[in-house]
Amino acid sequence: MAKKPKNAISPLRSEDYPEWYQQVIRAADLAETSPVRGCMVIKPWGYAIWENIQKVLDKRFKETGHKNAYFPLFIPTSFIQKESEHVEGFAKECAVVTHSRLEADENGKLVPAGELEEPLIVRPTSETIIGEMFSKWVQSYRDLPLLINQWANVVRWEMRTRLFLRTSEFLWQEGHTAHETKEEAIEETEKMLAVYKEFAEEYMAMPVLTGEKTEGERFPGANITYCIEAFMQDGKALQAGTSHFLGQNFAKSCDIKFQSEEGKEEHAWTTSWGVSTRLVGGMIMTHSDDDGLVLPPRLAPAHVVILPVIPKEINRAAVIDYCKQLKADLEAQHYEGESVRVELDERDLRGGEKMWSWIKQGIPVYMEVGPRDIENNAVFLGTRDKSPKERQNLSKEDAISSISEILDGIQKNLFHRARTLRDDHTFEFETAKEIYKFFDKEKSSNGFTKAGFVSTYWAGTLETENNLKSRHKVTVRCIPLNQNNKEGVCPFTGVKTKTKAIIGKSY
Amino acid sequence: MAKKPKNAISPLRSEDYPEWYQQVIRAADLAETSPVRGCMVIKPWGYAIWENIQKVLDKRFKETGHKNAYFPLFIPTSFIQKESEHVEGFAKECAVVTHSRLEADENGKLVPAGELEEPLIVRPTSETIIGEMFSKWVQSYRDLPLLINQWANVVRWEMRTRLFLRTSEFLWQEGHTAHETKEEAIEETEKMLAVYKEFAEEYMAMPVLTGEKTEGERFPGANITYCIEAFMQDGKALQAGTSHFLGQNFAKSCDIKFQSEEGKEEHAWTTSWGVSTRLVGGMIMTHSDDDGLVLPPRLAPAHVVILPVIPKEINRAAVIDYCKQLKADLEAQHYEGESVRVELDERDLRGGEKMWSWIKQGIPVYMEVGPRDIENNAVFLGTRDKSPKERQNLSKEDAISSISEILDGIQKNLFHRARTLRDDHTFEFETAKEIYKFFDKEKSSNGFTKAGFVSTYWAGTLETENNLKSRHKVTVRCIPLNQNNKEGVCPFTGVKTKTKAIIGKSY
Repeated sequence: MAKKPKNAISPLRSEDYPEWYQQVIRAADLAETSPVRGCMVIKPWGYAIWENIQKVLDKRFKETGHKNAYFPLFIPTSFIQKESEHVEGFAKECAVVTHSRLEADENGKLVPAGELEEPLIVRPTSETIIGEMFSKWVQSYRDLPLLINQWANVVRWEMRTRLFLRTSEFLWQEGHTAHETKEEAIEETEKMLAVYKEFAEEYMAMPVLTGEKTEGERFPGANITYCIEAFMQDGKALQAGTSHFLGQNFAKSCDIKFQSEEGKEEHAWTTSWGVSTRLVGGMIMTHSDDDGLVLPPRLAPAHVVILPVIPKEINRAAVIDYCKQLKADLEAQHYEGESVRVELDERDLRGGEKMWSWIKQGIPVYMEVGPRDIENNAVFLGTRDKSPKERQNLSKEDAISSISEILDGIQKNLFHRARTLRDDHTFEFETAKEIYKFFDKEKSSNGFTKAGFVSTYWAGTLETENNLKSRHKVTVRCIPLNQNNKEGVCPFTGVKTKTKAIIGKSY
Repeated sequence: MAKKPKNAISPLRSEDYPEWYQQVIRAADLAETSPVRGCMVIKPWGYAIWENIQKVLDKRFKETGHKNAYFPLFIPTSFIQKESEHVEGFAKECAVVTHSRLEADENGKLVPAGELEEPLIVRPTSETIIGEMFSKWVQSYRDLPLLINQWANVVRWEMRTRLFLRTSEFLWQEGHTAHETKEEAIEETEKMLAVYKEFAEEYMAMPVLTGEKTEGERFPGANITYCIEAFMQDGKALQAGTSHFLGQNFAKSCDIKFQSEEGKEEHAWTTSWGVSTRLVGGMIMTHSDDDGLVLPPRLAPAHVVILPVIPKEINRAAVIDYCKQLKADLEAQHYEGESVRVELDERDLRGGEKMWSWIKQGIPVYMEVGPRDIENNAVFLGTRDKSPKERQNLSKEDAISSISEILDGIQKNLFHRARTLRDDHTFEFETAKEIYKFFDKEKSSNGFTKAGFVSTYWAGTLETENNLKSRHKVTVRCIPLNQNNKEGVCPFTGVKTKTKAIIGKSY
């Protein structure tokens, strides 16, 4: 076997976390920047992860009664202007279409022509255009609830972009629903938040807090914004999904009215909720290590790679045949109700290089098979949640029959490891001074996890939030839904409260 | 049962085919126009058909070695300008993004601000941006073939739009591949054309001709454009999918070079191929009738609807229970390797109204069940390929056990019916005069099928094509791949040739 580098990724997490993140993406061939400012190219391995995310969520959305539809990419300027908070939130950074063709100027250079009467913006989110359609579709209480989801691309013109986490164009799903009553709309908002939490924890193996956003962090136009908030290995928070109770704000601005069972004309109550390709970034930062990407098996494009070891050309046919049979046997096994996904890597690379290429890509299980293994009817098996040094010999039969169990073990281990890291880095302090000190110092605890979450009593205002943000670069990440209902004192305002909040730095 | 209208759709196909088409879409609730000019909203029933199309094709693309990826929505003006024919084809009708935010003017009206240094166009197709990425990914012959597919939205600013057939924004897939040799690239182009043909005929039940486009109809920048060409019920042709051999045109303009096995630097050979939501339009116009949408079972969002007939309130519980059990029994059956998709319509509508709503939506099989049917252990079953007058009583057991066979029968019947219609409306003429007369007269043959296809020897030039187009509003739809190799005379040029072409009016 070829020599392996001490660690496959440089720099290490402890040296430069943001740069480590970029290098993990690069080494795993997930995505890259494009020549179009702020827009990324999602490469096959990264896109396959997104497809797996879509598949699971789409099924859950349909199980909870939602139907998919598709709405226009463009939104007329006059639409976005309908809801005053909404327009303020999105007008600052949007792609504006002003012309309908290109024409050559006198130098042969293409310039915009055919100016539009009304400029269009590329959707940053679709409340206004979907609201417009809902206003036509909803007439009577019998038309409610209206439960729609859309898988789409959206654009928000970001100044500083980072692959998956913040890009000008990204892929997402946006659910939009309309209801008869406030209670039903809030129930929907909470139900979809629960779907997100379950998905994040069960599939991404990424523990999340569910909570409510404070005024300063709310979606422009929402009455309540719920979120799932995840903990990244560098101690920062990632808002991984949001579910908004929009009250009657959009129903009023888009004129979504219905005749109630009692014959009264009322405005509907609407919700919207979404997760995006940002989830892939969260997954990377939750699990990956200094050797590269670590994938939770339930979302991995491939579960197992078989690596034939061919010391001499004379062994080739026998080794390849054995590996092909092993692949077929593994594929006959089931994981999560589907065939185990197996790759056989026959590339003509040195063994070490080949193995490390898969480790960097986050393959959950890798099996080396050489002539000696064949003699012993064995495989040499490594799992991505452990060091390659912990590889072990397993009989071929055991490797095959226990593959589903092995994958399940990795999935659980990743979740527990991530939850432990988060819990170990969630702190409580008595005074505001201690909290400021904590965040200002960027306390380094285990080499790469800086800072962390602070759990504190909270009775702050928008002003308190702005102060925290501008002076200490931290925000209230959420007011967790689980509160223990004991009273305490808000260290920022001195006000007694039963509400606790999670404060942290965020992506 | 309530009285049924003589036909559910007005006007009839024979009266006004284009308007009939709009009304079928409306009655089936497939899609509607949006307030954004030229952009459509695809409603749940229409989107579910598109999802079924995607599912089948995506599987076939993966089976043929392609991987999905995602590329930016925007293309810099300078990119689109790289290939001269390409830019001519697309610059005339594209959405141009010129600004990155909106600002309120003195009257509070939002106006574009933050002008971009270089305008971007919303992709009308992605050869240039994908070519740019390919040029980075391809270094050596070992990197080839590169087989990529993208599912995406694209925009072409159309002046006259029609739901599904021609909209400014549409959904599609675009395959993009790069190869070492010309032969391999042509083979890929033909392979994907065969995938399209198989899909159109086996899944959409829509017979297609496979052929090559003439110069006047070729994709801007392609050396060869292959197509699948379908026959609509009004006698017009629909280009339903294309597969382009791009030669080295884009490899040269995008600089996709590789080092060959012999160490020589060479330009790659590329292809691209795509089908879009236009397929849904083609499916509608191939099968639907004067009662509305007719869906091929393999793509239908639901296969069967159960319609409880409840003459008196006292029967309700028994009928509903029976129907629920019937639903479960049907769902336990398999069609095409998956559970049969069954809807139980418990809406409080009159029986006739309810049944006709499903007929208009194209449900392949509908079963009425009332107290008398329960007594007789029967269902009253209709299939959408036949008239509702041909409904029949079937024992419940037979209805359940033969459901897959019934669906299969509908699928085959639709295909054969469509193929017969096309073959019956494909004509041969000796002289150009006869051909002109045929098309100029808009011969009405069976009430709604006007004109048709003309199969003729062809040795025409671009001028001949332009003449046909401007004077007679017809185009060469394709040079079919299947040629009988007999010699004849091109009626337009008098030149002897073994090549035959299909001429027709087109969408």
